[in-house]
Amino acid sequence: MSPRLDSQLAFLVEADKLKSVLRASTLADNSRRENSAEHSWHVALTALALADHAGPDVRIDRVIRMLLLHDVVEIDAGDAPIHGDHDTAALEAAERAAADRLFGLLPEDMAAEFRALWDEFEAAESPDAVFAKSIDRLQPVVLNLANGGGNWIDYGVTEAQLEQRVGRKVALGAPGVWTHLQLRIRAFFTTIQGD
Amino acid sequence: MSPRLDSQLAFLVEADKLKSVLRASTLADNSRRENSAEHSWHVALTALALADHAGPDVRIDRVIRMLLLHDVVEIDAGDAPIHGDHDTAALEAAERAAADRLFGLLPEDMAAEFRALWDEFEAAESPDAVFAKSIDRLQPVVLNLANGGGNWIDYGVTEAQLEQRVGRKVALGAPGVWTHLQLRIRAFFTTIQGD
Repeated sequence: MSPRLDSQLAFLVEADKLKSVLRASTLADNSRRENSAEHSWHVALTALALADHAGPDVRIDRVIRMLLLHDVVEIDAGDAPIHGDHDTAALEAAERAAADRLFGLLPEDMAAEFRALWDEFEAAESPDAVFAKSIDRLQPVVLNLANGGGNWIDYGVTEAQLEQRVGRKVALGAPGVWTHLQLRIRAFFTTIQGD
Repeated sequence: MSPRLDSQLAFLVEADKLKSVLRASTLADNSRRENSAEHSWHVALTALALADHAGPDVRIDRVIRMLLLHDVVEIDAGDAPIHGDHDTAALEAAERAAADRLFGLLPEDMAAEFRALWDEFEAAESPDAVFAKSIDRLQPVVLNLANGGGNWIDYGVTEAQLEQRVGRKVALGAPGVWTHLQLRIRAFFTTIQGD
């Protein structure tokens, strides 16, 4: 018997619940809402595919590890849509409690390692975390541009709000990607305004 | 304008379709079938959480990259359930054609890099690929043990068939994990046989 392996497998079975946490954003074909597990795969793949747009200090494999772990807390704390209203302090407390419980299922050394990566992501200060945050924010923009606006329409988001809530953070870690997306966003909003 | 970034974003939008490819296995809570995108996240997380059960030559970050990419070909070729019947040669040809098309959406250097990782995974010879394959095969076992047998019941799979189709390959890359799972599998089959 191996208590260590039992702990690791218990964490992986609990993590499976992330597949049932729905996000506000929809798939590129607009067929349904995205869940946080498949989103986590998509952002990890996005970090890999956009690696050459990261700064020179960014270690992509650490970014990918952060992105694999970044939403696990939503199993307990739920997804907080970026264009929705939140009690930020309450949400952050719920997410910290979720991190305590969920990473706490793992063996102690591994719990500390995963928690440190999650804390680093949340702090958004290290080059790896800043890039990871940029990827997490730009992925739904790419989907919304593909699916005709998605939750920008549902939430009545304007181009200026998108710049404020999303663009500034994407530009911190991936400025070249944001400049590129801005052109497409401008074209999208021009089209729906009918001018 | 950046044709390179356009290619990368086009690949990422096309990759989104993996969220609509359904596997034979169900989630741990048996609520629905798993899709190949969320499966890809779960196996990448599994590689990270079970890293200390890999051999000394295994580089976990390369394993994670392989697992993020390993099922993308299913967008064109579909998922082939391990307990189903297949024309292996036809399936492999379809997957190679899918790899040509999908990785071919990327800039040439990145297409070659991703394709080389996928080819290495498929060949299942390098230590990284052998461990990645073990993780890919053991993840549905962990889910089925959690959900009461899942597709083992649907396909009438016996303990001996599971050992033959899954166990031998898991044991190649993660022998300690398989020994542990064998005990749980034995207990599961003993229970459903009612003795």
